[in-house]
Amino acid sequence: MGLTRRDFLMQVGQLGGYSAAFTMMQSLGLLPLPEIASEMGKLKLIEGGGTSVVILGGGIAGLITAYELNKAGYRCTVLEARERPGGRNWTIRGGTKVEFTNGFSQACEFSEGQYFNAGPARLPSIHRTMLHYCSELDVPLEVEVNSSRSALMQADQLNGGVAVQQRRVVNDTRGHVSELLAKAINQGVLDQEISKEDKEKMLAFLIEYGDLKPDYIFKGTERSGFKVYPGAGVEPPVPKDPLPMHALLDADLWQGMLAEEVADWQPTMFQPVGGMDRIPFAFKTRLGSIVRYGCVVQQIRQTPVGVKVAYTDGSTTQTITTDYCVCTMPLTITRDIDADFSPEIRKILDGVTYDSAYKIAWQAPRFWETEYAIYGGLSYLKQTVGVVWYPSARCFSPEGIVIAGYGIENGFAFGKLPSVQAKLDASRQAIELLHPGNGKDLTKPVYISWGRIPYNLGSWLSGFGRRNDKTFDALLVPDRRIYFAGDHTSHLVGWQEGAALSAYRVINQIGARLQNGGSGAAST
Amino acid sequence: MGLTRRDFLMQVGQLGGYSAAFTMMQSLGLLPLPEIASEMGKLKLIEGGGTSVVILGGGIAGLITAYELNKAGYRCTVLEARERPGGRNWTIRGGTKVEFTNGFSQACEFSEGQYFNAGPARLPSIHRTMLHYCSELDVPLEVEVNSSRSALMQADQLNGGVAVQQRRVVNDTRGHVSELLAKAINQGVLDQEISKEDKEKMLAFLIEYGDLKPDYIFKGTERSGFKVYPGAGVEPPVPKDPLPMHALLDADLWQGMLAEEVADWQPTMFQPVGGMDRIPFAFKTRLGSIVRYGCVVQQIRQTPVGVKVAYTDGSTTQTITTDYCVCTMPLTITRDIDADFSPEIRKILDGVTYDSAYKIAWQAPRFWETEYAIYGGLSYLKQTVGVVWYPSARCFSPEGIVIAGYGIENGFAFGKLPSVQAKLDASRQAIELLHPGNGKDLTKPVYISWGRIPYNLGSWLSGFGRRNDKTFDALLVPDRRIYFAGDHTSHLVGWQEGAALSAYRVINQIGARLQNGGSGAAST
Repeated sequence: MGLTRRDFLMQVGQLGGYSAAFTMMQSLGLLPLPEIASEMGKLKLIEGGGTSVVILGGGIAGLITAYELNKAGYRCTVLEARERPGGRNWTIRGGTKVEFTNGFSQACEFSEGQYFNAGPARLPSIHRTMLHYCSELDVPLEVEVNSSRSALMQADQLNGGVAVQQRRVVNDTRGHVSELLAKAINQGVLDQEISKEDKEKMLAFLIEYGDLKPDYIFKGTERSGFKVYPGAGVEPPVPKDPLPMHALLDADLWQGMLAEEVADWQPTMFQPVGGMDRIPFAFKTRLGSIVRYGCVVQQIRQTPVGVKVAYTDGSTTQTITTDYCVCTMPLTITRDIDADFSPEIRKILDGVTYDSAYKIAWQAPRFWETEYAIYGGLSYLKQTVGVVWYPSARCFSPEGIVIAGYGIENGFAFGKLPSVQAKLDASRQAIELLHPGNGKDLTKPVYISWGRIPYNLGSWLSGFGRRNDKTFDALLVPDRRIYFAGDHTSHLVGWQEGAALSAYRVINQIGARLQNGGSGAAST
Repeated sequence: MGLTRRDFLMQVGQLGGYSAAFTMMQSLGLLPLPEIASEMGKLKLIEGGGTSVVILGGGIAGLITAYELNKAGYRCTVLEARERPGGRNWTIRGGTKVEFTNGFSQACEFSEGQYFNAGPARLPSIHRTMLHYCSELDVPLEVEVNSSRSALMQADQLNGGVAVQQRRVVNDTRGHVSELLAKAINQGVLDQEISKEDKEKMLAFLIEYGDLKPDYIFKGTERSGFKVYPGAGVEPPVPKDPLPMHALLDADLWQGMLAEEVADWQPTMFQPVGGMDRIPFAFKTRLGSIVRYGCVVQQIRQTPVGVKVAYTDGSTTQTITTDYCVCTMPLTITRDIDADFSPEIRKILDGVTYDSAYKIAWQAPRFWETEYAIYGGLSYLKQTVGVVWYPSARCFSPEGIVIAGYGIENGFAFGKLPSVQAKLDASRQAIELLHPGNGKDLTKPVYISWGRIPYNLGSWLSGFGRRNDKTFDALLVPDRRIYFAGDHTSHLVGWQEGAALSAYRVINQIGARLQNGGSGAAST
């Protein structure tokens, strides 16, 4: 059952009255923002006065919830099943153990200083909340290069299957499009769409847009690189011959080509120096004993005045009883807990499906830098392994960690490969297709399959969750004294920023409830 | 008089025979390169055996020439007029004195750690030679963000003159272009251009390219940003309304929009940590007493066996006589030296014109980061000051140096402003247009006008030099024992890489001459 905005605001209204609802709308960023303002969610901390809260899960949502509520005088406890904070925010280094639910186990053998981020690996500059915490917690950031024009694109239909630089695909496509549109305009067929005055401007624009010749023909552009590079000899530079539009259409590399324009993938992007897990570990330092590691939730029960959570620390079962509970665990995990959730929450849990994203990382000499001038960025292939992601960290050093590839396993060819070895082979083959002869340079592989990682059982809600399925809106309303947070309760599925904003929502909701006397349980 | 490739190779042939000419072609990168190879020029060091070379000018061309020839056993002397190496590679910090030829003088008041690069400020990853020296000389690099989708574009005709994010201009333009082309294709007017099979693929592509609705209409895209940002509240995200194509055409921001696709401005770009002058100072350390600072060239004379250069160190006039001379000084400076150049060289010098690029830099709190989520990149305006360049260094720190603006003075409105104060006012006004209310935050201005900097008298050859004027090809042939290097002798005018490749050319030319006995002087 979907929840309309009106329903939702009415339910908030029942907790705190209309002004609470309005304030909450504001605080959640539901009102239009000025043209160029910060998009950071607004946190409204209400003094907790010793109110106790148990937070299930020490990922980004749980850590921020505990960090902020603790500031405001709540007594917080985070129960985290692992011995580390961060959840999917997980940086793999030499010595890291990777264990799958099916018993498959890996021990990472990377050299000292080498790492990769198995989960989130990018911080867009529009994700204001996460950047705010990096500042507040003194986590140094560096640029994450998300797009390099020297990175490659490969499809069997294009250039005889030999990979081409992204600059060619991007700029040759724009050239062809500009030429075609100029032709149509010059034939007068768009006269109804374009005024006479605009027509001249449009044609002048297309010459610039596509780097067309004065006769509106695209004959190649220096933007796509050079056959003869501009040097100091006598020969003038010569641009590469354009890739034919027919081949570009056949290759269908558009998704990779346009990835850099996805809202959350546009420059400028950042990453913490040394690994994404510097963020959860910075929270860990601040939170100290508030986070209990190695504590696996087993049972959740509600009473009229509180929430009782039973958990095991591996040897004994313990219970904790608090005024409120914030459940940030993945729904795949929450689903299997013995809990007296409302029928509506249970229905969501019963129906939920998660994607299983994977990454395969290798240590290698930086042939992509020395031989291809690729520093960071991603190459795209139309193959079983469709993405190769180069490190933005420690450029110009001798070795680095390259990810080949990154994608979703369920429903895709990669996921159907019969063995881990077959997957590693496909990964090496992707490198070989992009960088012939360098497949052999890949060493020390680590394969992460989030669907088989304990305490995750998936990477993120399938189908972008609330973006496409209103059912999940019901997670915004507390089930009596249990609140739900995590990126799966946001419109930013799979992003730390979604987790952070969901923490803000829950903090604001609990604060509004306390202001209203703290007694009323939301109807569901 | 232009020099054809054939003429040139014949002249090289006179020096070293056909194989020398062929080797030189190879070494200068004149032969087509493989698809994805390094574009670095090939240096062929020939043992100098004590051959003496005086190098005029300690910019990048001069420093590399001396560094490499010194390695190979030549006795090198660099005469540099200033007390520092680097030429236009000049990093301005607190305490730096800036003196114009007209007597106007500034003392930079930046705080400790603040700086800006008055000359070159970017190292494209395709400039392999410069990156090679950063590695070899241990100059640490960091990413220079040359394009940020949160940076702004402003034109009076667009959005009521209120600046918009680049993401909107880029993605709304692509949306409109895609819609128009889809309309033309659906009307069948391009059937002669596009096969029936491609037509379907083309339409599918345009939906993806422009983020069109299934009916091929562009109604806005999340790529352009949000009216309602994706959060964790109940409201789904809402993309911004598209900017109308009519207004985009009127605004004519295309040059700024497409800057990121210029061959040498594409990601990934770098900059030395701490300032571009870390490169010349690294050479300075290696070259030691080979570079004589404060030595102003006054006279150049050739004999059948050598070159005699008279220079003053401020107090006395001295002379140095060497086997060869490499002149890397700007042509604006070389022109006024008392020298017995050949008529052909003299003709070039007499006709030469240089542009005068300017930069105005301010220290300010980083309002562009905190209030606009802009980290590096450039904003573009259709105003007297047309570019604002944000620092990529030390992001997230309290203050930084913002450049407003950067451009050519000669022939443009900015250059016609009547006073330095009027220029600073225009600079502040550009910031105010982009960031209303922040104009007042700008402090400690520094204004660089390369046309009025002693020992430069210009920023670079006008009109892209050899790209558009074959006359300059004559600089590739030595005037008896004087060789010419510097970016003005390359196809990369205004780039350090051009200077570096020109040094390689000269080194290879001198080496080939030594191999040939070292006696023959080139005909001119």
